[in-house]
Amino acid sequence: MVQNQLMLSIRFLLLVAASFAAAADLNKPLVLASQGSFFIGGESKSTGTGPGAGDVTINQMYVSFQTPPNASRHTPVVMVHGCCLSAKTWETTPDGRMGWNEYFVRKGRAVYLADQVSRARSGFDATKISAVKAGAAPASSLPNIIFATHQVAWTVFRFGPTYGKTFPDGQFPIETVDELYKQMIPDLNGLLPNPNPTWTNMGLLAQKLNGAVLMGHSESGFFPEEAAMINPKDVRGIVSIEQPCTTTLNSSQVAILAKIPILVMFGDHLSDIQGGPANWNQSFQSCQVFVKQVNDAKGDAVMMHLPEMGIKGNSHMLMQDKNNLALADLIMTWIDKHVDSRK
Amino acid sequence: MVQNQLMLSIRFLLLVAASFAAAADLNKPLVLASQGSFFIGGESKSTGTGPGAGDVTINQMYVSFQTPPNASRHTPVVMVHGCCLSAKTWETTPDGRMGWNEYFVRKGRAVYLADQVSRARSGFDATKISAVKAGAAPASSLPNIIFATHQVAWTVFRFGPTYGKTFPDGQFPIETVDELYKQMIPDLNGLLPNPNPTWTNMGLLAQKLNGAVLMGHSESGFFPEEAAMINPKDVRGIVSIEQPCTTTLNSSQVAILAKIPILVMFGDHLSDIQGGPANWNQSFQSCQVFVKQVNDAKGDAVMMHLPEMGIKGNSHMLMQDKNNLALADLIMTWIDKHVDSRK
Repeated sequence: MVQNQLMLSIRFLLLVAASFAAAADLNKPLVLASQGSFFIGGESKSTGTGPGAGDVTINQMYVSFQTPPNASRHTPVVMVHGCCLSAKTWETTPDGRMGWNEYFVRKGRAVYLADQVSRARSGFDATKISAVKAGAAPASSLPNIIFATHQVAWTVFRFGPTYGKTFPDGQFPIETVDELYKQMIPDLNGLLPNPNPTWTNMGLLAQKLNGAVLMGHSESGFFPEEAAMINPKDVRGIVSIEQPCTTTLNSSQVAILAKIPILVMFGDHLSDIQGGPANWNQSFQSCQVFVKQVNDAKGDAVMMHLPEMGIKGNSHMLMQDKNNLALADLIMTWIDKHVDSRK
Repeated sequence: MVQNQLMLSIRFLLLVAASFAAAADLNKPLVLASQGSFFIGGESKSTGTGPGAGDVTINQMYVSFQTPPNASRHTPVVMVHGCCLSAKTWETTPDGRMGWNEYFVRKGRAVYLADQVSRARSGFDATKISAVKAGAAPASSLPNIIFATHQVAWTVFRFGPTYGKTFPDGQFPIETVDELYKQMIPDLNGLLPNPNPTWTNMGLLAQKLNGAVLMGHSESGFFPEEAAMINPKDVRGIVSIEQPCTTTLNSSQVAILAKIPILVMFGDHLSDIQGGPANWNQSFQSCQVFVKQVNDAKGDAVMMHLPEMGIKGNSHMLMQDKNNLALADLIMTWIDKHVDSRK
């Protein structure tokens, strides 16, 4: 185990060095074989029988994609954002650096960005809100809308121990935190049925792509596993970043997940937050249990706890942290070894 | 006038021929000098004083962009979508063809796609809804949410005279109308203050870009004019597509707009819809009046009413119609002549 962590640390240092050497390449023109957008899933719903009533479409998931030339050498990667955010998560960072979406494309992968069902371009089911407005339903039937305040985001995203304070080694570009706050939008997942249509749609997307690596973060961190348990057919790999893991899976669920390579990644300062609604150390511990369950079932699950690999100061928003591209390299190296080598 | 229309018709036929010849080029790899996303505008709002209260950011506008090599030869183009839609409007069409966003980029222009404030990735002010849920405000204070049903969309978007019927010459790819329905998401503009922050943000975006052509459609069709009347500084051109025009502008407002080249475009069958909430012929007539007002003030406003130019069957969603790229060529030719030639 210690040797494994040492190996990972050395590999990471090499990756950091390679990242610096490759930085100049990131300014070269980006060449795309194709790009576009589409929806996965969706169903019709009647809005009732009154005047103006009719059908609307709900539970669809908006997906945009970019494909580099020769993408077929690598498995496509689907990225799904967390609570109170949109696919903007993966794009240009708050301080204007390249996001994982473009970086993965430049590294030869087709990348699919989704807005969760009930968020952003995927829309939401507005009929429950309108029913209350019309007096046809009580105010209590309105959804619980999560809109994280700046104060909550600061500690939940682990920019520092309390609001306004930072960790000395913090990797988040805190001087541009206002740009992150603009990414934070109301979360209407309280309107969703169970199972969450995003899970189903992620599975359908993997199927449409004839195989994909599903990546989730925070609220959606365990969505790849949920998607695979519903429809494992073309889920070739799972990347779960900074989320609570379910530890109550039954043996047949674990057996499904044991057939899929899984990478779990956590940043730094998990126990260094004072107060706030999230307990990241607890989440980390639950994922340790989950990784062990999968490996005990002869699966291939890897936990990368970054500080144990010598990578310090990463926040919850590690795809936006200053070392975001080096972390992306870690993930792609894992995909190459655990997923693409099986192709 | 008749001669003008004839000239436009001949030019359009040449453009259609050129489009066919150029179609093969559209399959070539897309080369981008840069791409990314950011927010324009936005302000902090306190959520109150209770437990969990804090500050959220509202009224920001999400913008993504792509810049081709040598884009400096043309003025950047900002595209803003209409009611119950997002920037998806300009991307891949419902039947999977190239949208205006990529086509304009392939034609050498930097393109900026915005989600209107209060929609999609721009988020919305959820505090009013949560106040009702908490019992702190009456249900009547909930916003009027517009969610266009399939039935309403069919006639408002002029796919045919009544729901389920099509026009024989209709240009919309009606066999994939279900994919359009998935683009239609609840419109929360009822939450917005006056002036609409999208107007202000569009002006700020033009300024940030040191000059831009602002394009709006339907609900946002007159937003470029509104933006210019607030902050005309760097609005170099306006493209207003299928919207009601304001005909009650005062002379100083008209004087502002008379300094900016303006193109107004309308499709076909404006008077051929039976019932429904939109009266497109009335909108068209209002824009005829507006165009005359601007030109009477020595402005440069052009009305392209497509059927009068021999271009038949276009729906309200003309950026998704089967001849969408030929229409894009018409617009770019207008930009070259009326905007870029002034650079």
